[in-house]
Amino acid sequence: MKRIVLIRHGESVWNRENRFAGWTDVDLTAEGVAEAYKAGDQLLENGFFFELAFTSYLKRAVKTLDCVLDRMNLDWIPVEKNWRLNEKHYGALQGLNKGQTAEKYGPQQVLMWRRSYDVAPEPLNAEDPRNPRFDVRYKDVPTSELPLSESLKDTIDRLMPYWTGRIFASLRDHDSILVAAHGNSLRGVVKTLKGISDEDIVSLNIPTAVPYVFEFDDDLILLKDYYVGDAEEIKKKINSTSEVRK
Amino acid sequence: MKRIVLIRHGESVWNRENRFAGWTDVDLTAEGVAEAYKAGDQLLENGFFFELAFTSYLKRAVKTLDCVLDRMNLDWIPVEKNWRLNEKHYGALQGLNKGQTAEKYGPQQVLMWRRSYDVAPEPLNAEDPRNPRFDVRYKDVPTSELPLSESLKDTIDRLMPYWTGRIFASLRDHDSILVAAHGNSLRGVVKTLKGISDEDIVSLNIPTAVPYVFEFDDDLILLKDYYVGDAEEIKKKINSTSEVRK
Repeated sequence: MKRIVLIRHGESVWNRENRFAGWTDVDLTAEGVAEAYKAGDQLLENGFFFELAFTSYLKRAVKTLDCVLDRMNLDWIPVEKNWRLNEKHYGALQGLNKGQTAEKYGPQQVLMWRRSYDVAPEPLNAEDPRNPRFDVRYKDVPTSELPLSESLKDTIDRLMPYWTGRIFASLRDHDSILVAAHGNSLRGVVKTLKGISDEDIVSLNIPTAVPYVFEFDDDLILLKDYYVGDAEEIKKKINSTSEVRK
Repeated sequence: MKRIVLIRHGESVWNRENRFAGWTDVDLTAEGVAEAYKAGDQLLENGFFFELAFTSYLKRAVKTLDCVLDRMNLDWIPVEKNWRLNEKHYGALQGLNKGQTAEKYGPQQVLMWRRSYDVAPEPLNAEDPRNPRFDVRYKDVPTSELPLSESLKDTIDRLMPYWTGRIFASLRDHDSILVAAHGNSLRGVVKTLKGISDEDIVSLNIPTAVPYVFEFDDDLILLKDYYVGDAEEIKKKINSTSEVRK
């Protein structure tokens, strides 16, 4: 039996302030750290073990992973970081809160961005200091691949080469891997693993810092998927996950 | 100019209890975490940047590194973990405190272990559950290479292939790297970099969680080495570093 466990980062400072983070490197709140530790405790109690872990280039995902591994006494396992696991790039929306966004772009426009699979928010100006090409962490990524804004489709498209070629492929040599990432990059993973349609994936809410387990047979056919933790609590978390909490 | 920065982990629970840790995977104290964050702040304030980092398989070094990188907003850089950076294996002394050790083995014997370069403490029994071959993290290391006890010489001997072949070699492709490790594995590094004798290296005390910088020219000739931080404070730290704090 092979296993992939997904975990979305715990609450970030901008989650709390209801602002679009996207590729902004915001930190976890104390609550976010506590959520991550709790997830680690639950995985340990339930006998999980990981040989390898993957995460994004963003602090909130890296730290969530570190907290989980620490509680599992797996600080020593190899961790691979890749920009392709980053959150969806929210373009000019990054930094704005829900209210500001509706005010600036109108509620109809905002609804469209939130409901559509393939419409990206207004892009950053190429000269905006937040353009990823000015950020040293992306210096090895060709500028043509660096987004100024992304739809969910764009996010999934840039994730797929890494997902297929590296993460999913690592199950050939490993039995159990952990992936710590973001609401939208994990939507891409779940869409692929479960064959969810473009229409339906937009409304899938993955709760923060709840281990989401996918089990496969030795031919890597998906057998089942489930969350680890208290069902009622998870349901509450899913329902409270506002669209803006990215 | 090329640069290697060494950092010894912050205070661990067994440092505080004055017990030999060695390969025991003890956690940092709150003070140890604070020390590590402070080191990160100092490196950031002084304009340091790292492209790559290395650490051991032990939680106290991994977490020290994570804290430093977090404060520098370098959570995203690649981190390589290797057992060869582990602390010296203290054999049957692991878990004992200074007092218990003197009681059990006599003060003369203890002095000899503490002062000698190539005499290892009494080894663990091969059937001891603490034998590293029973620990999943070392499953890919040949049993013949896994120690039951180590002298400082043994520690340096097993570190060298990784130091020379991987860490120091990475300066060919990188300008600035960070190594988070332990009192004795870092003695090995400093011995090699500065050409210190077997006799003198035993009494070199590296303070906890103080960045120790080595600068090289482009031919990798050592130009200078220095600690980052307040000179008086560092001196105090070095003097208070008891031999048992490993």
